Amino acid sequence: MDDAASCGCGASRKAVAVDPAIKETNQKRLRRIEGQVRGLQKMVDEDRYCPEIMVQIASVHEALRAVGRELMRNHLRHCVAQAVRTGGSDAEAMYDELLDLIYTTSR
Amino acid sequence: MDDAASCGCGASRKAVAVDPAIKETNQKRLRRIEGQVRGLQKMVDEDRYCPEIMVQIASVHEALRAVGRELMRNHLRHCVAQAVRTGGSDAEAMYDELLDLIYTTSR
Amino acid sequence: MDDAASCGCGASRKAVAVDPAIKETNQKRLRRIEGQVRGLQKMVDEDRYCPEIMVQIASVHEALRAVGRELMRNHLRHCVAQAVRTGGSDAEAMYDELLDLIYTTSR
Amino acid sequence: MDDAASCGCGASRKAVAVDPAIKETNQKRLRRIEGQVRGLQKMVDEDRYCPEIMVQIASVHEALRAVGRELMRNHLRHCVAQAVRTGGSDAEAMYDELLDLIYTTSR
Repeated sequence: MDDAASCGCGASRKAVAVDPAIKETNQKRLRRIEGQVRGLQKMVDEDRYCPEIMVQIASVHEALRAVGRELMRNHLRHCVAQAVRTGGSDAEAMYDELLDLIYTTSR
Repeated sequence: MDDAASCGCGASRKAVAVDPAIKETNQKRLRRIEGQVRGLQKMVDEDRYCPEIMVQIASVHEALRAVGRELMRNHLRHCVAQAVRTGGSDAEAMYDELLDLIYTTSR
Repeated sequence: MDDAASCGCGASRKAVAVDPAIKETNQKRLRRIEGQVRGLQKMVDEDRYCPEIMVQIASVHEALRAVGRELMRNHLRHCVAQAVRTGGSDAEAMYDELLDLIYTTSR
Repeated sequence: MDDAASCGCGASRKAVAVDPAIKETNQKRLRRIEGQVRGLQKMVDEDRYCPEIMVQIASVHEALRAVGRELMRNHLRHCVAQAVRTGGSDAEAMYDELLDLIYTTSR
């Protein structure tokens, strides 16, 4: 499928386009998340109070959701928009994929 | 509050007790999660297809929930159990804290 | 904004279009959900075992999510698709609204 | 298992005890939720703007979570507390049930 390839859905699995600002924000966020996870390891090593560790875990969840949200924005702007403009079964397939994505990943 | 201190709720913020098996499982899980987060950084660097990155993010959420669940188990076994046996306002305060914890962190 | 009105975002707050199959499915689901809520009332009246009631509540959450998912599908097919085709600031505004919607309602 | 029966886990599936204030609050909440669900039916009948209906659905989810939270409080106060005081395998079984309950119903 030609449009699938151009859309990054093919073998290469590349995004059709990535906004530089979104990419940089997400790189920065993921480095911070890596640091948070190392912080969690330290808390576990030190037998810290469990609810305190759990609150930190909740903050990593929040940070990951922020990354996912920007990826979703990029996906809407480029991949979904392209499928909508193509229309027909491509658009329907994209809505199905998008609904699965929303309900499995946006929690 | 004396019992708060012994329960790790005081300045030291230590868990009253940590089961070694839970601790080791969580240390292993958090190292794997750190690796997953570095994998996410690579995916973002390489402009991978956004939904594919989001599915990986969902898997990090799942892995973090598994850590939280074991921390909750440890918390129930030791800290909550201690407060229940003490009873009275200590138990009520623990239920309040536990409900907050459940509804803010178990998502 | 003309397109906003045609898109149902205006005073009338109507959907730009609703697929009859989606509408009928959702009407049926919501009647069943009403019955489930009355079932919950009965369980509370009868002092049923709390975890048993909580499992029923989880099933109402699931049923509501299924309704939300079909509404999201209808929204993508009609309102979002229209905004994408219009492009420009309309499309960007729609992505912002959609991201808010996804992250506040799809939990 | 004798304690299971007294705990409401047996055939009767009754709560071991229900605080009257919790029961009344939940009865009131569930009647209001029933009204909200009827409101959703009306919105669907009238082809209202999908995101507007979804925001109302989110508010029903919130209201249901508030009911679940009070049921969890009652469960901690009575059933869990009883199992903790009994100790041993009863307590462990209760923690397992509680963890399942937390991670399947508190979302």
